[in-house]
Amino acid sequence: MMKEIELEQVLPQEIEKRSFEIITEELGDVKLVPGTEPVVKRCIHTSADFDYAKNLVFSDGVIEHALKVLGSGATIVTDTQMAMAGVNKRKLAALGCQIRCFMSDPDVAEEAKKRGVTRAVVSMEHAAKLPGPLIFAIGNAPTALVHLYELVKSGAVKPELIIGVPVGFVNVVPSKELILTLEDVPYIVARGRKGGSNIAACICNALLYMMPGGR
Amino acid sequence: MMKEIELEQVLPQEIEKRSFEIITEELGDVKLVPGTEPVVKRCIHTSADFDYAKNLVFSDGVIEHALKVLGSGATIVTDTQMAMAGVNKRKLAALGCQIRCFMSDPDVAEEAKKRGVTRAVVSMEHAAKLPGPLIFAIGNAPTALVHLYELVKSGAVKPELIIGVPVGFVNVVPSKELILTLEDVPYIVARGRKGGSNIAACICNALLYMMPGGR
Repeated sequence: MMKEIELEQVLPQEIEKRSFEIITEELGDVKLVPGTEPVVKRCIHTSADFDYAKNLVFSDGVIEHALKVLGSGATIVTDTQMAMAGVNKRKLAALGCQIRCFMSDPDVAEEAKKRGVTRAVVSMEHAAKLPGPLIFAIGNAPTALVHLYELVKSGAVKPELIIGVPVGFVNVVPSKELILTLEDVPYIVARGRKGGSNIAACICNALLYMMPGGR
Repeated sequence: MMKEIELEQVLPQEIEKRSFEIITEELGDVKLVPGTEPVVKRCIHTSADFDYAKNLVFSDGVIEHALKVLGSGATIVTDTQMAMAGVNKRKLAALGCQIRCFMSDPDVAEEAKKRGVTRAVVSMEHAAKLPGPLIFAIGNAPTALVHLYELVKSGAVKPELIIGVPVGFVNVVPSKELILTLEDVPYIVARGRKGGSNIAACICNALLYMMPGGR
């Protein structure tokens, strides 16, 4: 006889709360940097991957700074439409924040082709010209993160926060290590190969939900 | 002295190819179901998580069937805007395929609230009424997958493919096990807790890129 498949009875509005309880339970004695717990746990919630308890690196005071910046009407820049789609628009609007992604703009594709660079590189240059305060949430392209580093170093942009969580196998690890060398730019970085557009979006949401009014 | 951070010199158009070579190398002797390699490898590419070499379950002949369905102008239904954003629109259009997501529709939210169910449940009911052939790509809500199972069982919908890859901690595992019991519906399921909107989108893309014309 087939084993019965059992569903837990949980009210829709309780599912996320119950998920976070399970994550907290399973983290057990793992030590997280005080104040970063909502970010770390949301990354685990988004991926079911407890590696995020170990690989997330936070610059000193980054959470407090990020919340202050979100409270002053920041613009979040993503390197994929997917990350942009994943960020909570209602909460962004309530805070007077914006979100932008240049990756699908026809002129970006054209310029990238002409120069032999990725669209991500051109996207970062366009984003650098936006009025601040700017938060960069990079979940896909290491070339975006590397070029963002170069733009910071050359003084072309001064981000208030870099969320550096591209995923993959080619230049992903060193692109993140570059961000970790920045001394004047607050960052949240997923060290190693892991990350993604989903992780970039969920870190934005974790920060947004820490703002007054919660989710 | 700080260790030099070294970037690999790879042309933009070669990055993905090189990534897949690394994945193939690191998979080594791992046995994948013949024909499913592009799907499995793209899931690893999207997540940098080799668990997908073990947790993906394919119903018999599902790849061949999926490609036939995509060739006949299918409609893909997702359970998040993020998954929808991640699917390659140019390739969809070239094949005469569509993609839909009902999650942000105001009437879906209203109906869900009134009935005390998730928006995902209502979304699946709306999707079930679409003209076929239908592919469901569920990367987020186990309630979507459970209700889709019920709709299939009651005869209200006959999907040509279910991509069942919700992620998380509450009812995610059993929701997928339900799909694995279906005998007349082709499926691709990520067994266990892992999955996500990114995985749902990348499985769609892996299948789309297997179609004539490639990427």
